[in-house]
Amino acid sequence: MRYGHGGDLYTYNGILDFSANINPFGPSEYVMEAACGAVREMGCYPDSQCRDLRKKLEMKLKIPQGQILCGNGAADLIFSLVFAEKPKRALLAVPAFSEYEQALRAVGCEIVYDYLEAGEQFAVQDNYLERLTRDIDIIFLCSPNNPTGRTIRRDLLVRILEQCERSRIRVVVDECFNEFLEQPEQATMQAYVAEHSRLILLRAFTKIHAMPGLRLGYMLCSDEQLMENIQAARQPWSVSGIAQAAGIAALDEDGRVLDTRRYVAEERRKMETELGKMGIEYIPSEANYILLHMEQDGSLFETMLNRGILIRDCQNYAGLSKGYYRIAVKRREENEKLLGVLREISRKG
Amino acid sequence: MRYGHGGDLYTYNGILDFSANINPFGPSEYVMEAACGAVREMGCYPDSQCRDLRKKLEMKLKIPQGQILCGNGAADLIFSLVFAEKPKRALLAVPAFSEYEQALRAVGCEIVYDYLEAGEQFAVQDNYLERLTRDIDIIFLCSPNNPTGRTIRRDLLVRILEQCERSRIRVVVDECFNEFLEQPEQATMQAYVAEHSRLILLRAFTKIHAMPGLRLGYMLCSDEQLMENIQAARQPWSVSGIAQAAGIAALDEDGRVLDTRRYVAEERRKMETELGKMGIEYIPSEANYILLHMEQDGSLFETMLNRGILIRDCQNYAGLSKGYYRIAVKRREENEKLLGVLREISRKG
Repeated sequence: MRYGHGGDLYTYNGILDFSANINPFGPSEYVMEAACGAVREMGCYPDSQCRDLRKKLEMKLKIPQGQILCGNGAADLIFSLVFAEKPKRALLAVPAFSEYEQALRAVGCEIVYDYLEAGEQFAVQDNYLERLTRDIDIIFLCSPNNPTGRTIRRDLLVRILEQCERSRIRVVVDECFNEFLEQPEQATMQAYVAEHSRLILLRAFTKIHAMPGLRLGYMLCSDEQLMENIQAARQPWSVSGIAQAAGIAALDEDGRVLDTRRYVAEERRKMETELGKMGIEYIPSEANYILLHMEQDGSLFETMLNRGILIRDCQNYAGLSKGYYRIAVKRREENEKLLGVLREISRKG
Repeated sequence: MRYGHGGDLYTYNGILDFSANINPFGPSEYVMEAACGAVREMGCYPDSQCRDLRKKLEMKLKIPQGQILCGNGAADLIFSLVFAEKPKRALLAVPAFSEYEQALRAVGCEIVYDYLEAGEQFAVQDNYLERLTRDIDIIFLCSPNNPTGRTIRRDLLVRILEQCERSRIRVVVDECFNEFLEQPEQATMQAYVAEHSRLILLRAFTKIHAMPGLRLGYMLCSDEQLMENIQAARQPWSVSGIAQAAGIAALDEDGRVLDTRRYVAEERRKMETELGKMGIEYIPSEANYILLHMEQDGSLFETMLNRGILIRDCQNYAGLSKGYYRIAVKRREENEKLLGVLREISRKG
């Protein structure tokens, strides 16, 4: 069975990895030093309440600590949330990150799909509001969406949230790629957390701070009862001491985040221009990855693999089909190598 | 609300901690170096299947990789197992590690208790077998038990296992403290895993390798379907890359484990002799911690806290009551400090 996720460098040793969509500059020296410092403290239990990290997040986000919950990566929080809520019926706008579905299936939740249209660049449309009926318990939306790279318009998100409050639906908005956007503050729903207790925002350190090996994410939510239920549905020490220390250090890295954001935007534009020139279909992205569509004999995944490049085959995403692939926006020389190979392939095809 | 676990150094800063029961020598330099080395790789996703670590465990334990599942600490595996199984009715021999109960409650499982008797040194008795009726879905046993330090006789464990196979009951044996025993191989149920698919063994690196800050545990089970169900009920990347690297290194530390075992046994005997001289009641322990019973005006926890020593107040364990406290076996000079304070208190009391 083929491994279903990006970043599987354990099967594909020594390959150029365009399948994982994390910060192209990798983890910062400063954060790695903090993590190594924390290794010296590995003989102590981690703070089960992540107090120092949450305090720093509170100061940065202007959201009270009580509304911040840290997890062993955002994926851990998705499972803990679903186990605490045990929803009966969920609405998923797809394609989207596959862990929502896996977690929902684990509690026997019925899943109904809102299929986003390729012709509309997989954007969530106004008619999504009509799907928000009282029989739905929870919805997951991802903005910018993975694997499409498209944000959901905030005015639409606000109407979705209002409709969900009327219909008593839990709204999960996954913002794990928000910090790669050129205008992250225009997309985030952060300002709505305090007043809308049905809203849950998911955030990750994994992507923007390039620390997937450490596992750290957090959720924002003003529903105190839900926060307590989630804590009751998981072990007390889900976040390692190393991840907490690295997270605290990463919050000092505003300059690096800003540089990353600018660099990714510039590289993404160049890559999209080149893809256009090659006649390769793609969804114009706002994030640090691009969804391609390329019908050809055989699989582009295999063709690229034979050339030493790992890309993400997206045909196993609900709402996508054969011919969809996700590539990361990486560093210039790496992107040029990828584009060079794609250019050859598209000429031959 | 008081924090309910051991090792909470975040509330009690700069204190001498006898509440957490981990290797008194702390983490080894060799393992810390391996962990720091892995920090350099934190930009890569961890191997979701922990292949290198499981391969090394396979060689060491002589148990096939397919019967080994790693987790973000043993506590993570307890929750994942319970979420995958969703038992309706569980039997817990108490007092025991409180996470079994917390995980079972999170899936709405009814819990029935087998109260172990102080007069029998909290040993599981033969009449436990009568409780293994068909209405029970799962049992948890801890050997050596936390907080009592007592193992369950293997002949009894084998009869329990056989009875559970007849009654179709899942048997979880938590061996997280096994490696602190003087004769660990006489207590472990490892040899029964291959032939008994209802048996699940839990093990941790946390305690014997003193790495609670990293989070690493594993389970052994020959029920392939259950192993798949657990994987489906949790995120793919629950074990950090750092924990995997540290675990791989820790498996080279046989000499250190042996030294720890001898040291702990010697110190435990001395401590028990001294407690006896002071007239303090205790349960003779086989592990790296001792359960005391001390009725006095006020709480020994508070009295010790005022003297700069953190112990584990065990009154919140099901099956225990006010006056029970767990102390760790630490290094000689630390143990002497603790004993000195206890001596003063017991003279006054």
